[in-house]
Amino acid sequence: MSKEKFTMVGKVERRVDGYDLVTGKVKFTGDLKFSGMLYGYARRANVAAGRIKKIDCSGALAIPGVVTILFANDIPGPNIIGILPPFDQPLLASEEIRYEGESIALIVAKTKAVAKSAAAKIIIEIEPWDPILNVDEALKEGARKIHPQGNIIFSKKLIKGDVEKGFEEAEVVVENTYNTGFQEHAYLEPEAVCAVPMGNGRITVYASCQSPFHLRTHISANLNVPASQVKVIHAHTGGSFGGKDDVAAEIGSLASIAAVKLGKPVMIAHDREESIIGSNLRHASRIHYKTGAKKDGTIVAREIDILLDGGAYASESPFVVMKALIHAAGPYNIPHVFVKSTAVYTNKTYCGAMRGFGVPQVTFASESQIDELAAALKMDSLELRYKNGLRPGDATATGQVFNQSVGLIETINRIKEKRKHPHLKGKLNDSRWLYGTGFSCMLQGISNGAEGIDVVGASVQMSQDGSVLIGVGLTEMGQGSHTVFAQIAAEVLGITIDKITVKQLDTDSVHDSGATVASRSTTVGGMAVFKAAQEVKKSLVKMASLMFKVNEEQIIFKENFAILKNDDSARIPLKEVATAAYWTGFPLMNLAFSKAPEANYDHETHQGNIYIAYNFGTHMMDIRVDRFTGRVEVLRHIASHDVGKVINPLGVEGQVEGGSLMGFGLAHMEKIIYQEGHIINANLADYAVPTVKDRIPTETILVEDYNPTGPFGAKGVGEPPVAGTAAVFANAVADATRIRFRSLPITREDILKRITAIKK
Amino acid sequence: MSKEKFTMVGKVERRVDGYDLVTGKVKFTGDLKFSGMLYGYARRANVAAGRIKKIDCSGALAIPGVVTILFANDIPGPNIIGILPPFDQPLLASEEIRYEGESIALIVAKTKAVAKSAAAKIIIEIEPWDPILNVDEALKEGARKIHPQGNIIFSKKLIKGDVEKGFEEAEVVVENTYNTGFQEHAYLEPEAVCAVPMGNGRITVYASCQSPFHLRTHISANLNVPASQVKVIHAHTGGSFGGKDDVAAEIGSLASIAAVKLGKPVMIAHDREESIIGSNLRHASRIHYKTGAKKDGTIVAREIDILLDGGAYASESPFVVMKALIHAAGPYNIPHVFVKSTAVYTNKTYCGAMRGFGVPQVTFASESQIDELAAALKMDSLELRYKNGLRPGDATATGQVFNQSVGLIETINRIKEKRKHPHLKGKLNDSRWLYGTGFSCMLQGISNGAEGIDVVGASVQMSQDGSVLIGVGLTEMGQGSHTVFAQIAAEVLGITIDKITVKQLDTDSVHDSGATVASRSTTVGGMAVFKAAQEVKKSLVKMASLMFKVNEEQIIFKENFAILKNDDSARIPLKEVATAAYWTGFPLMNLAFSKAPEANYDHETHQGNIYIAYNFGTHMMDIRVDRFTGRVEVLRHIASHDVGKVINPLGVEGQVEGGSLMGFGLAHMEKIIYQEGHIINANLADYAVPTVKDRIPTETILVEDYNPTGPFGAKGVGEPPVAGTAAVFANAVADATRIRFRSLPITREDILKRITAIKK
Repeated sequence: MSKEKFTMVGKVERRVDGYDLVTGKVKFTGDLKFSGMLYGYARRANVAAGRIKKIDCSGALAIPGVVTILFANDIPGPNIIGILPPFDQPLLASEEIRYEGESIALIVAKTKAVAKSAAAKIIIEIEPWDPILNVDEALKEGARKIHPQGNIIFSKKLIKGDVEKGFEEAEVVVENTYNTGFQEHAYLEPEAVCAVPMGNGRITVYASCQSPFHLRTHISANLNVPASQVKVIHAHTGGSFGGKDDVAAEIGSLASIAAVKLGKPVMIAHDREESIIGSNLRHASRIHYKTGAKKDGTIVAREIDILLDGGAYASESPFVVMKALIHAAGPYNIPHVFVKSTAVYTNKTYCGAMRGFGVPQVTFASESQIDELAAALKMDSLELRYKNGLRPGDATATGQVFNQSVGLIETINRIKEKRKHPHLKGKLNDSRWLYGTGFSCMLQGISNGAEGIDVVGASVQMSQDGSVLIGVGLTEMGQGSHTVFAQIAAEVLGITIDKITVKQLDTDSVHDSGATVASRSTTVGGMAVFKAAQEVKKSLVKMASLMFKVNEEQIIFKENFAILKNDDSARIPLKEVATAAYWTGFPLMNLAFSKAPEANYDHETHQGNIYIAYNFGTHMMDIRVDRFTGRVEVLRHIASHDVGKVINPLGVEGQVEGGSLMGFGLAHMEKIIYQEGHIINANLADYAVPTVKDRIPTETILVEDYNPTGPFGAKGVGEPPVAGTAAVFANAVADATRIRFRSLPITREDILKRITAIKK
Repeated sequence: MSKEKFTMVGKVERRVDGYDLVTGKVKFTGDLKFSGMLYGYARRANVAAGRIKKIDCSGALAIPGVVTILFANDIPGPNIIGILPPFDQPLLASEEIRYEGESIALIVAKTKAVAKSAAAKIIIEIEPWDPILNVDEALKEGARKIHPQGNIIFSKKLIKGDVEKGFEEAEVVVENTYNTGFQEHAYLEPEAVCAVPMGNGRITVYASCQSPFHLRTHISANLNVPASQVKVIHAHTGGSFGGKDDVAAEIGSLASIAAVKLGKPVMIAHDREESIIGSNLRHASRIHYKTGAKKDGTIVAREIDILLDGGAYASESPFVVMKALIHAAGPYNIPHVFVKSTAVYTNKTYCGAMRGFGVPQVTFASESQIDELAAALKMDSLELRYKNGLRPGDATATGQVFNQSVGLIETINRIKEKRKHPHLKGKLNDSRWLYGTGFSCMLQGISNGAEGIDVVGASVQMSQDGSVLIGVGLTEMGQGSHTVFAQIAAEVLGITIDKITVKQLDTDSVHDSGATVASRSTTVGGMAVFKAAQEVKKSLVKMASLMFKVNEEQIIFKENFAILKNDDSARIPLKEVATAAYWTGFPLMNLAFSKAPEANYDHETHQGNIYIAYNFGTHMMDIRVDRFTGRVEVLRHIASHDVGKVINPLGVEGQVEGGSLMGFGLAHMEKIIYQEGHIINANLADYAVPTVKDRIPTETILVEDYNPTGPFGAKGVGEPPVAGTAAVFANAVADATRIRFRSLPITREDILKRITAIKK
């Protein structure tokens, strides 16, 4: 497969959904209108911790237009959301309040404005408790238990080799603690669902979400009906980045309960404040790193302790704990590694999945320390990375050995090339600007791997006119996967991309394929499309061989024609083959499954085979810092990633640019500010997410190291650039300012304070 | 399979969709409301034949609320409907008018009332021609050609043996001509569609229809877009009986063109008059039969000439021609058969598919003549049928030999049993009532057979909670197939029926399975469900064997548990097996295809294997006729059918009772009355469709002759009772009145006239 010439794979394609999106034609959930539709709005807790004593909603119910108010005891099912044990989160809180913003009641009214004003009229008496606001308080001996099982959500260890022995061998040791803050997903479209009772015992839920199957599970459980009666349609979704999972299950369940109770469609569409305070954030972290090396730069040991602030509920903290654990040692060949990773409950908005899943936090810390080690060794930091970087045949931190598709060194080489042509040439520090260059290396596991089973279903259906409809059990949330799937099917079937439609996922039409996470759409999802398309192709080949009266081997498909291999002029339009195949009874639809090889590892030490592949990356960033304002100007950012075979270069660039900007936001701009458990900047005026004006000049370099576990050799790329950019920014700032910032974000304000401090 | 004991198959089950239907919860197409929805209404021709000279719609466009008016030249595609060659029907007529009621323009307005009043304001000048109103005129030398290719739609011959030689051997010959009238489908819910542009390049069409895939084909062609961009959802449908195919394609295409043009949802919902004049009817027929027999009753030859009035367009006339051809000789072992079957164009509403598809017409004629032959032979007519009836190993009229599932003789025997206990005992003709008893035998092919390929796709998806969602490429239009599918899956998976949801078909989710016709849902559709469920079961068995740590052979599933074969107390709830299977990565969804063995026959003589099976039936009817009013009272009607293994006895009874009533309507009540090409009774006040008050006391006797080509041995039953009842009624009337009526319907008026004539 690796040496074939491709026609559709590797071709620059505009997003198949691009035109309708940029021209504003696409309908998002909030645009939907159904006859008799009602609107739901949650009344939330206004303290971070306490116990509900009394609720009086008589005033709220008296407001004209209010239809009903739902409380915990109106939920037919178990009142639980959360896809993982310990299943600790109520849909509606009825006793204890664990974070400010927790939903207590759902007001359903004829308009959202009415629901909102009714929400304010509900009188809720809460006995307030002292909130636990950081991990130290939470872990303190005798601390109040936020949940009955205590304040530790999940904790895991990774043990490779003998880290004590490793440090004994070390000649240079560096050790430090790094911090990162909370980050909001800040998608363009806040969360929204619309539940429509179908009148035939079923309910259809349109949802802006990441994982319609999770919604189905939660909705059916909380409605107490069989899952087969619930259909979740993945509405066009304006971004998710891991954020629209638990919260979508929450509002999907609430809207469904209200819709079934009232027999009417119910919409819940969050505004920005609800989106920030009422759903998960990226975990803040405190990470201690100790790295030991020989004088020649050979890293021999790393010992890492990761503490993640998980907020009030577990959500996907266990996955984030594991992912941070597995990636903490970085893309290096290190014989002795010990990592401990722990998530802790606090009385803050719960944390969960977000693009990168713990990897950006540890990569920032790890790569900062690599720079610090290089300084201690007086080595060039990029050379230090090159020296220790994983090569084919090396063992990762979990002891997994890849003999193929380990392109790290090539990504470093490509950066070295760029470094030879310094962008900052002639731009020396002057009275105003401080110039600097940073480097970072990273890896990010592709596929669910250790986090669970990884099966994706996909269907490919060709109509008699030769057009093709693709359905995949994963969601398109803006990442461009529909275009990738179309290119894969087009390549297999020898058709042009205009013949292909990729439909929105709904839970009726394909096997439960789990969540669209872990940069697995192109690999595991793409492989399912590949398999399904191959089956359809078999029917077409059979039919064409009957029509041409030749052996099947003599037939190829290209440019929407069946063509004889040895006579390019012998052509039958594929639509004629499709029509004939249909009338001959050869199936033109297939539902295929792709299953990633299962993770296989020791649960005590996390040693074993974790992922089907890794994306490897090396970043370089040239910046200048304004001595007078702390402003950072990114002059050049080069992101070199080994993504396996590229399906759509434009799509990969988009992912690298978008992920990089999100990493830049994490590293430099975005800061959730808590005051006593209350987020004071729950809006996009005060929470500074990068806008188009903050766009950094990312240049993407793609290394295509063939991955045998992906379709046509592809790997994923959705998450990796976040980590690479967050890390490289910190190192560039350190290089420019000669100050090591060990906490993200490194805001303009932070920089200015430290520069000014030095000046004094 | 035939000797297994079943738990779900053969069990009386209430219809899975019954509760929501009878409580009025189900939403039909006309109940749907979308924001901004517009309404379409067609302006139709008011002459039966002519040429459009001028159209002026300025007055109509000036009416407030009228949004647009579409004509033929507004259709992006080829302006054709019709699933078969000769593709002779325009979506909107632009030149020639071929029947009164043909659509010329579509008015789209804010309400249907506005659209209707605008339709009346469109001035259409038509040069009228003398309409051709019957088959004789149409076939006359030099007759005006209704279509360029002439006035014969389709004509076929069936030749078995040597019919001339047969008649030479015959000792008794009877010969006569029979007629049947047009019949309207008269479903409770007239045709309706609603087209919704999705804003993402796709259009979703909700349709009360029989074959969503036909709609997809027509809509995409007429919109000139790839089929993959069109999704047709089969809305809950209040009856179809063959009627909602071409017309649904017509209004589906028109609504879609308007919706795409205007960017808004467009509903077209017919009222009763539109439903009658604007869509196909059952073919009227004139059939000549000649039957020769030995004196001992052995039938040696039949020569049959069938002329069908096809109306203005071909529609499914070719299929009806073939079906009449194949079934005309009846369920008898006759060495020499010659049949000619022809459909002819006239300037009347087009005729097409209707439950029975030509078989009721020929069965009425054939069975009338069998009675006449019995009279000529002075034989008991049931004994004559018994003597000649098909037995295993006999050849049908097409020379097809079935060695299994030929239950005709058993159905006769069961009727003989009933005859021993005369219902009319002591009820002799008196001064008011004439008593009589009729018999009929029939056969009806199951599956598409000679009419085309027969492939059905079905998906079975089990969720982690053990509930199951079934999707089948065929439509539930009231026939109860969803319940049959649920029982089949329940039997395979060992679960109870409450765990199962059968979803409405949409064209995205399953392979194009053609039309839901030919009584093939239970057989071909059921087999697809059977196969898909078997695949899901394989995953469950694998998982259960891992959980029990036993071989797969030791596991059975029943009552929602996995159970050890040799230890009924060792049980794991199936939902736990399903959850474990999911997390282990065993697929819990399968999309399977069932392909009926292909028809294989000589196209000149129609000799060969046509169908996968036949349903055989024998009917008996006791009636009394009021000498003073002509009123017929059905005292007893026994319908004995060989349906193979019964899946749901209640469902089969429902089909037999409903089909019988439709046959009764055809035979006795229903009469479309044309005056110069104009239907004068296009409403349910003047067109007498049987109501609940006309219900006849049908008693169903089921013969279960195992059919190896159906799931668990089942055959179909949707159509056969129509033919049996139409025929038995005519014979009962002849027995009671001693008058042979050779034209259907035999109305009360007809009977009274003839009785009175005799009295004089």
